[in-house]
Amino acid sequence: MTGNELMTGDIVDSNSSMIAQRLLDLGLSIQQKVTLADDLCLLSKKIESMTVSADVLIVNGGLGPTVDDLTAQALANACNVKLNESTAALQHLINWSNQKNYLLDQANLKQAMLPNGCEIIANRVGSAVGFKMRLNDCIVYCTPGVPSELNVMLEEQITPQLEVNLPNTNNYFVERLQIFGVGESKLQQLIIDNFPSWPDKIELGFRAAAPLLELKLTIKTSEDYDLLELWKKNLTQLLGSHILGEIVSTPLTMAEYVLNLLKSKNRSLTVAESCTGGLISSLITAVSGSSSAFEAGFVTYSNEMKSKMLGVDASTIGSYGAVSEQVVKEMALGALNNSNSDYTIAVSGIAGPDGGTKDKPVGSVWIAWGSSSKIHTRYFCLKGSRQYFQQMVATRALDLIRRELIECKKPPFYFEQAL
Amino acid sequence: MTGNELMTGDIVDSNSSMIAQRLLDLGLSIQQKVTLADDLCLLSKKIESMTVSADVLIVNGGLGPTVDDLTAQALANACNVKLNESTAALQHLINWSNQKNYLLDQANLKQAMLPNGCEIIANRVGSAVGFKMRLNDCIVYCTPGVPSELNVMLEEQITPQLEVNLPNTNNYFVERLQIFGVGESKLQQLIIDNFPSWPDKIELGFRAAAPLLELKLTIKTSEDYDLLELWKKNLTQLLGSHILGEIVSTPLTMAEYVLNLLKSKNRSLTVAESCTGGLISSLITAVSGSSSAFEAGFVTYSNEMKSKMLGVDASTIGSYGAVSEQVVKEMALGALNNSNSDYTIAVSGIAGPDGGTKDKPVGSVWIAWGSSSKIHTRYFCLKGSRQYFQQMVATRALDLIRRELIECKKPPFYFEQAL
Repeated sequence: MTGNELMTGDIVDSNSSMIAQRLLDLGLSIQQKVTLADDLCLLSKKIESMTVSADVLIVNGGLGPTVDDLTAQALANACNVKLNESTAALQHLINWSNQKNYLLDQANLKQAMLPNGCEIIANRVGSAVGFKMRLNDCIVYCTPGVPSELNVMLEEQITPQLEVNLPNTNNYFVERLQIFGVGESKLQQLIIDNFPSWPDKIELGFRAAAPLLELKLTIKTSEDYDLLELWKKNLTQLLGSHILGEIVSTPLTMAEYVLNLLKSKNRSLTVAESCTGGLISSLITAVSGSSSAFEAGFVTYSNEMKSKMLGVDASTIGSYGAVSEQVVKEMALGALNNSNSDYTIAVSGIAGPDGGTKDKPVGSVWIAWGSSSKIHTRYFCLKGSRQYFQQMVATRALDLIRRELIECKKPPFYFEQAL
Repeated sequence: MTGNELMTGDIVDSNSSMIAQRLLDLGLSIQQKVTLADDLCLLSKKIESMTVSADVLIVNGGLGPTVDDLTAQALANACNVKLNESTAALQHLINWSNQKNYLLDQANLKQAMLPNGCEIIANRVGSAVGFKMRLNDCIVYCTPGVPSELNVMLEEQITPQLEVNLPNTNNYFVERLQIFGVGESKLQQLIIDNFPSWPDKIELGFRAAAPLLELKLTIKTSEDYDLLELWKKNLTQLLGSHILGEIVSTPLTMAEYVLNLLKSKNRSLTVAESCTGGLISSLITAVSGSSSAFEAGFVTYSNEMKSKMLGVDASTIGSYGAVSEQVVKEMALGALNNSNSDYTIAVSGIAGPDGGTKDKPVGSVWIAWGSSSKIHTRYFCLKGSRQYFQQMVATRALDLIRRELIECKKPPFYFEQAL
């Protein structure tokens, strides 16, 4: 990984994580990752030394038009060759600039100067082509630093080439499940306790994608596919409604799962929020097309507005306090009465860090959910930062309406902790 | 940086960015960053080889209780010493577990086994102490992988030690300004055009902290402090109200700036949101103590609810469409009429990717803002993803009310682009 901006901490490097995941899907593991500033001498020395022990070296960044883009020169130095103007790279630059209606300048032309003898890797989405060379029996790929360009180049060019060129790549087969309502350690324990004979051939991986959890099942050969399906079924029985779904292309959010259910039933949802202050509405409306199942949200932060907007009886608030079963129930009913929605969520709690009392400490929250035929209520105490509290309340509230929509009778694991 | 999770791409490494920024504030630059899996042999070899050319080596991660936490052993191997139970580390573990009401197990006791001759670095917030050793004339610091623990250890222990131990650290003096409404390239051009004689002694840095921008001014000696103040004043004149404020300890959000102004004037705000769907309310209520200046938000996603909740005339929607100057104005007035607030924001637009027309393409948005004495309106077209659109509309809307609160008459730069 190259670039001054990676060394000063001004940006967080997400490219190496993308590269690692792509390689892992091929069954290739990374031996070492080195990050360097834009220093020609250091770069060429490091490229040279890393090729000695590796089969493949991926160099990322430094393909741009400016003076601090040094990768082509560094590779040329490491290979002891000169830079040459590449006709193919130049043609790519001309096509790219025509398409963008952009006039090439001298700086851009530098992007066509590549190490003598290199092979070009097409860049379908940006100006800088990638290139590869062989050095010390190692294939060196030089790739662009712009994440979207790197992503396309990895998918369309580099991983297919590696599959062919490296005889010992395993095309790992991976399935991913999205889970909510059970933590990583609890999930590990559940699997150990319930499946003492979990097969070695299916590797389990966990990935926290807060507030959700991803469970990854990997097999190293397609022969084990039936085994994978069998154990996925066992897992599904164990975890039940805690499994939101299987990741097909990209992971979904909790709000997307809820919206998909609402749409499939031709139903709609309204929310009444106090302590989450609009976050639940915002998570829902972050999803494109949410308008067909969501018409309104009531953000009633003050007590007066709970009465004014939702018709909560001021005497209910007076008797039980704003954070109470009675008040969230009236909020939920008020949201239904003041909209055309079929389902509702209402939340009232103490996000903190201030505002807690002995009876109602920071982290206390009442959630109401359901439809006009039945409103459920539940108390939770969620310790953590204000941000954690708001995210977790919003996600649990959405999960509870999801469970209502799939008509799940079994309570989620997190009901046990809610004392 | 150590850890299998960093090599598989399962997590993105933010610790190294934190370390880099801390060191940069001391005037120390990082020569090389190496990331390795939890492999004892690789780790100890790399520690040994890196100490040859560096003054300081910071090893991060691998201090935990499990079998894949190998840093102590790796450093011991590199230094050719044995692991010993450290009385001080053991005492720290006992104190930590008593405080947490947690029973130490055999795995935890491993955390007290440290390389013979190392010096302990206190960990005020976690179970694993850090430690340091000298090898090949290089100081090696071993630090915990949990970001919050690393942060405290860097601030309270390591950077003060480095200032004393490295004679050639420059205590760089840095000031940071938070900016909104002018992009990085425009800002660079403005500075080049207006300040051709910008002094070399003041280094300018830009850091995108979307949707805000941070401008960093660095001097390398305290003698240049007056010069820094002078040029900061010049910059302030140039950028005016685009500067939100100076970062004192941690950066503020746009909502925090708005809330601070509202509180200082003892005024309150209500919002009526269509296309941002609760995001503006959510950004406001993410701030602790927001209830003193925010009582309610109206998330009116459907046309019918704009009329029902805010009293927008159905015929106004019929004549001009929901995304129109007339409708946002009625939404803003409706929000004021239906609450006790002094100030209001209303937004209505097309977040996309669907729903655009020839006259009102995706990205179109009308924003209304002001108080009962005067409601302003403005049209913008913001091209980008749904997420970008919602974030930018929310932040511009908050910025416009901020400008109203500071009684700024000069229009922001982004009015020019809004055609």
